[in-house]
Amino acid sequence: MIVCKFGGTSVASAEQIKKVANIVKSNPERKIVAVSAPGKRSSDDIKVTDLLIDLANTVMMKGNVEEKIRAVVNRYRDIADELGLDNLISDIIEQDIRGRVAEDYTNKEIFLDNIKASGEDNNAKLIACYFNAIGMAAKYVSPKDRLILNDIPERTYALPEAYENLSVLKDTEEIIVFPGFFGYTKEGILRTFDRGGSDITGSILASAVGADLYENFTDVDCVFAANPKVVNDPVDIKEISYREMRELSYAGFSVFHDEALMPVYKQGIPVNIKNTNNPTAPGTRILPTRTQSNRPVTGISADSGFSILYVSKYLMNREVGFGRKLLQIIEEENISYEHTPSGLDDISVIMRSSQLTPEIEKRIMHRVKNELCADDVQFSHNFSMIVIVGEGMRHNTGLAARAAAAISGTGANIEMINQGSSEVSLVFGVRSEFENQILKGLYEEFFAAIPTA
Amino acid sequence: MIVCKFGGTSVASAEQIKKVANIVKSNPERKIVAVSAPGKRSSDDIKVTDLLIDLANTVMMKGNVEEKIRAVVNRYRDIADELGLDNLISDIIEQDIRGRVAEDYTNKEIFLDNIKASGEDNNAKLIACYFNAIGMAAKYVSPKDRLILNDIPERTYALPEAYENLSVLKDTEEIIVFPGFFGYTKEGILRTFDRGGSDITGSILASAVGADLYENFTDVDCVFAANPKVVNDPVDIKEISYREMRELSYAGFSVFHDEALMPVYKQGIPVNIKNTNNPTAPGTRILPTRTQSNRPVTGISADSGFSILYVSKYLMNREVGFGRKLLQIIEEENISYEHTPSGLDDISVIMRSSQLTPEIEKRIMHRVKNELCADDVQFSHNFSMIVIVGEGMRHNTGLAARAAAAISGTGANIEMINQGSSEVSLVFGVRSEFENQILKGLYEEFFAAIPTA
Repeated sequence: MIVCKFGGTSVASAEQIKKVANIVKSNPERKIVAVSAPGKRSSDDIKVTDLLIDLANTVMMKGNVEEKIRAVVNRYRDIADELGLDNLISDIIEQDIRGRVAEDYTNKEIFLDNIKASGEDNNAKLIACYFNAIGMAAKYVSPKDRLILNDIPERTYALPEAYENLSVLKDTEEIIVFPGFFGYTKEGILRTFDRGGSDITGSILASAVGADLYENFTDVDCVFAANPKVVNDPVDIKEISYREMRELSYAGFSVFHDEALMPVYKQGIPVNIKNTNNPTAPGTRILPTRTQSNRPVTGISADSGFSILYVSKYLMNREVGFGRKLLQIIEEENISYEHTPSGLDDISVIMRSSQLTPEIEKRIMHRVKNELCADDVQFSHNFSMIVIVGEGMRHNTGLAARAAAAISGTGANIEMINQGSSEVSLVFGVRSEFENQILKGLYEEFFAAIPTA
Repeated sequence: MIVCKFGGTSVASAEQIKKVANIVKSNPERKIVAVSAPGKRSSDDIKVTDLLIDLANTVMMKGNVEEKIRAVVNRYRDIADELGLDNLISDIIEQDIRGRVAEDYTNKEIFLDNIKASGEDNNAKLIACYFNAIGMAAKYVSPKDRLILNDIPERTYALPEAYENLSVLKDTEEIIVFPGFFGYTKEGILRTFDRGGSDITGSILASAVGADLYENFTDVDCVFAANPKVVNDPVDIKEISYREMRELSYAGFSVFHDEALMPVYKQGIPVNIKNTNNPTAPGTRILPTRTQSNRPVTGISADSGFSILYVSKYLMNREVGFGRKLLQIIEEENISYEHTPSGLDDISVIMRSSQLTPEIEKRIMHRVKNELCADDVQFSHNFSMIVIVGEGMRHNTGLAARAAAAISGTGANIEMINQGSSEVSLVFGVRSEFENQILKGLYEEFFAAIPTA
């Protein structure tokens, strides 16, 4: 059995949904289909999710709600008309949206989630309806009472009973169309996933039914070895291990969100990232382990927005517990950190700048100076992390040297090197102004000269 | 005013003590002289300190004590005779030793410290006596009631009142001969410094009197840029900053113990490491800041005996507090660690192997697995840390690349790179069997081609 997920652009229009139907039809193993809300049809289009956020805000601010409802409903009506469906499904969708709009909005978060999630929910209904209209036996299945989530305000995740409840779907005769992005708490409150929403739903479904494969359809042929917006025409990645994918997606690789990997990772289910617009392209396969290619490096990614807290104290290394106490102070500010390179008398803590404010920085510096009696404490900002990932790095002795030389070749200074724990990645900290140049330099070093694997 | 300290080989024989007298006499600024116990006169000789340890153990095991006393006393008698001193000083020394031997040894540590410290104490008396005999006005000054130390069982250090008490020595007319290596608690219990003992005494004296210079006389012309036992004929270091010296002495540079730097560091007093056997050689100067040379790297050192604890857990980086909790477990085993390189889902903790036993390892692994729910926990051993040190590294963009390439050139794999906090050092973790090869390779890269600065 294959679970497939179709992203926003794959279900943005009647034309796209026809492609989806053809893809599902072409392989009888494709029994469970998770769908996103209709995305952009062109670069200047507005996603249905954004129309819904606008609608929810208009309700809460008591603006012209009718106009906003119409904008959303018309998107579905256009799709339904073009697909040759009768008015029934569009009327159901309109009624559903009006029902959500009429709900109490005392708790803004719950209200907003409920309106937003209608994008996926109604699209699933519409697509199930279309499948049936063209003779594919299909049914819409709601996450209600099935995809059970934890309670507010914790970060959303699926509870173990979600997997149990959803496992029965493996015996389906019909094609199941399942909306992505949301589920319900035990009390029946709708909640959405924080990031990579529909990808997570598909991954949970694949895990729950023990799928042989999880296909993730998007609008690119594959994952590239480096950001194509920075590197000119980068090579595609044919196979990548879970660990490689996770390390890459951490720093700027936005194709597949790392949290979405978790459910399939636990079951060892392979993932295939494919293109709805070019379904015969093999795409990128994410596997527990991959066959070796002739390249030590699989991909290079970069992310900006990091800050460094530098702390020095003479004879620091003689003080048992210094590092632990420093991390405790940071933890008490509810800040998570990435790396902690250390010298003999100094330690740096690298964290995402988005977690900091001038007040938090001041508080941390004050505590470190006073409680830990540090000689010097300071924050610096505007750093990028460059991550070089590859299972082949494990036994490649000269790789760190080549990477460092390629970075130095751009004239940039290496502010931090982190190597030594993960054997599949090497992290360099650099000033953000050098990020793109370095990405190009590293791509040149590790990919340009070698033919596609 | 200059405080000078003479190490064991500098005061091992009459001939050596004559050199010391000439050195002290040649500059009237040399007013305070800290001395070690007589060291080895040749490579197969036994240090007085080792004779004393043997004596103390013989007392405690009720062996032939008289023979052991004689072995110690005869060393002093030989020196005194050759220096042309009468029997008085030798008799004083013998009486002193017999007095210490007769003391209660219920507390073995206190008894042993008391016997060991007699090596320095009696040598200081003998040298003061000789100075006077040749017309240099000198006096022996005891650490008693002056160099006040903290109480047992804490690691030995000098209390603030030690500095106050010793500061009056700055007004001395005569040359003060002060024994190194030990002091007394407020209750009058004799304690010795853990490591680099006489160097610390000299440093404390220099700091207390606000000396213009602290001269540390030993038996080498200078500090070398790399271990001369491994690297063939390494260049000498003419000037080195405190920080550089400290980073180097951490990993195997045994010329000057890092803890001994602390008192002079705090006062910014320059240190000059010189050779008693070649006092006109300029030696190595340790300074708060140094004038730049044409070399980015000042020295390279290496130390073996490190272990790595590797911990991995999927989505570790999402878990606020994971690193802190891990360090807490290690701290609760009273283990200090060196570095903690981290990947996305893994963290390694690098520590000195001497702190570990199979039981401690088992306990740590058990706790990490159970309390932190880690996927994988393991210890590996036999690692060396290679430290490249240089103030000039701060702005040298290609240095990490050159170092990594030099290491790879030896065929060794780099297990860890730590760069990012200290701007004057770069640390590589490697398997110990490659240590010497790598040291040679790095020396070749950074020193061989460049003429002496």
